[in-house]
Amino acid sequence: MARRARPGPSPADPKDRHRAILETAARVICERGFQGASIQDIASACGLTKAGLYHHIRSKEHLLLEIMNYGMDVFEEQVLSQVLPIADPLERLRACMEKNILLVTRGWSKEVTIILHEHATLTGAARAQIDARKKRYVRFLESSFAEAVRDRRIRPVHPKVAAFSFLGMVLWIYKWFRPDGAVAEKQLVREMQNVFFGGLELPRRTRAAGRARVKRGSG
Amino acid sequence: MARRARPGPSPADPKDRHRAILETAARVICERGFQGASIQDIASACGLTKAGLYHHIRSKEHLLLEIMNYGMDVFEEQVLSQVLPIADPLERLRACMEKNILLVTRGWSKEVTIILHEHATLTGAARAQIDARKKRYVRFLESSFAEAVRDRRIRPVHPKVAAFSFLGMVLWIYKWFRPDGAVAEKQLVREMQNVFFGGLELPRRTRAAGRARVKRGSG
Repeated sequence: MARRARPGPSPADPKDRHRAILETAARVICERGFQGASIQDIASACGLTKAGLYHHIRSKEHLLLEIMNYGMDVFEEQVLSQVLPIADPLERLRACMEKNILLVTRGWSKEVTIILHEHATLTGAARAQIDARKKRYVRFLESSFAEAVRDRRIRPVHPKVAAFSFLGMVLWIYKWFRPDGAVAEKQLVREMQNVFFGGLELPRRTRAAGRARVKRGSG
Repeated sequence: MARRARPGPSPADPKDRHRAILETAARVICERGFQGASIQDIASACGLTKAGLYHHIRSKEHLLLEIMNYGMDVFEEQVLSQVLPIADPLERLRACMEKNILLVTRGWSKEVTIILHEHATLTGAARAQIDARKKRYVRFLESSFAEAVRDRRIRPVHPKVAAFSFLGMVLWIYKWFRPDGAVAEKQLVREMQNVFFGGLELPRRTRAAGRARVKRGSG
């Protein structure tokens, strides 16, 4: 089941130790469901007593919030913050797709991803917090698409539809991609960029001057 | 919560009654999780006693299988069987996208969709059965993309990546689309077809002869 064999949290660094608890808890919650997974189940999987686990967490609900915030932290660090500085909106979106695909494919805790996108168990302020973080990404995508349309880098497209089409393609990957499967990671990035941007992009630069030659005033 | 207010299963037709039980059960399972939802919870939501519910279902596990098979039945009836007879692979894929989008947007039990795509609780033969039905759709998409490439109706693309990109875009819709939201259903279909096929399609016919004129031997 576990993709990086991790026999319970053992790292010395308290931050790593906490992360290991979150990843282990995510795995148990995915296996048994949030209602089905008891604090005892999670503690056992972490190699801790119940009291030992409560040293690290506040409650089961709060643990779920922590798992989701951890997922968003990793995403923002490895994807969003990497591409925000890119000035050209199309290059920004292409890089964003690449980095988000690689985040999904590179063996990083799949269970955290599942919880982030499939568990609607959070309520109230906790839910609002996670929704706001997710919405930030959607807004970033929407405004990048709108900017790319304005700059005539892509043909006109509804920013919301483009943003969620992008997200659906990229996030669905965790449901089907296998690292040892028929499609290699790099190939997946290239093919998805081609499917998605191959159509949207306007031929401003002479990219690969293939068999099809497009006649148009150079912008 | 419920989008079609349905105060428990009341239809006279036994088949409709059974469907209503499945939709109500799906709603309860989505709200409480499969482990968290008891047979008593499901019975109450259906306006039945526990014994009354057991008249209709075999077990909680089997109920989950029935919900998923019901979801696949509706999908195959409203999408797959409608587009299978279309001879041209590109037209087939475009129609398939339209019908699948409309299935997701048209208020049909969202909870059945969620269970179909998010619940991995099934095991053994039951899981294999549902996986085989899902795989049939993936194979249909893959072979249609491969055929469209062979017929030079679309540019070369990895059939598997194309199939799952299509699926991700279309199925993710249930996570964000609101019937009263900023994007109308018909617009969503048109925009997604443009995003997805606008890039893949080769200009064999003079479709909208826009500003960009593509020089190429007519196929």
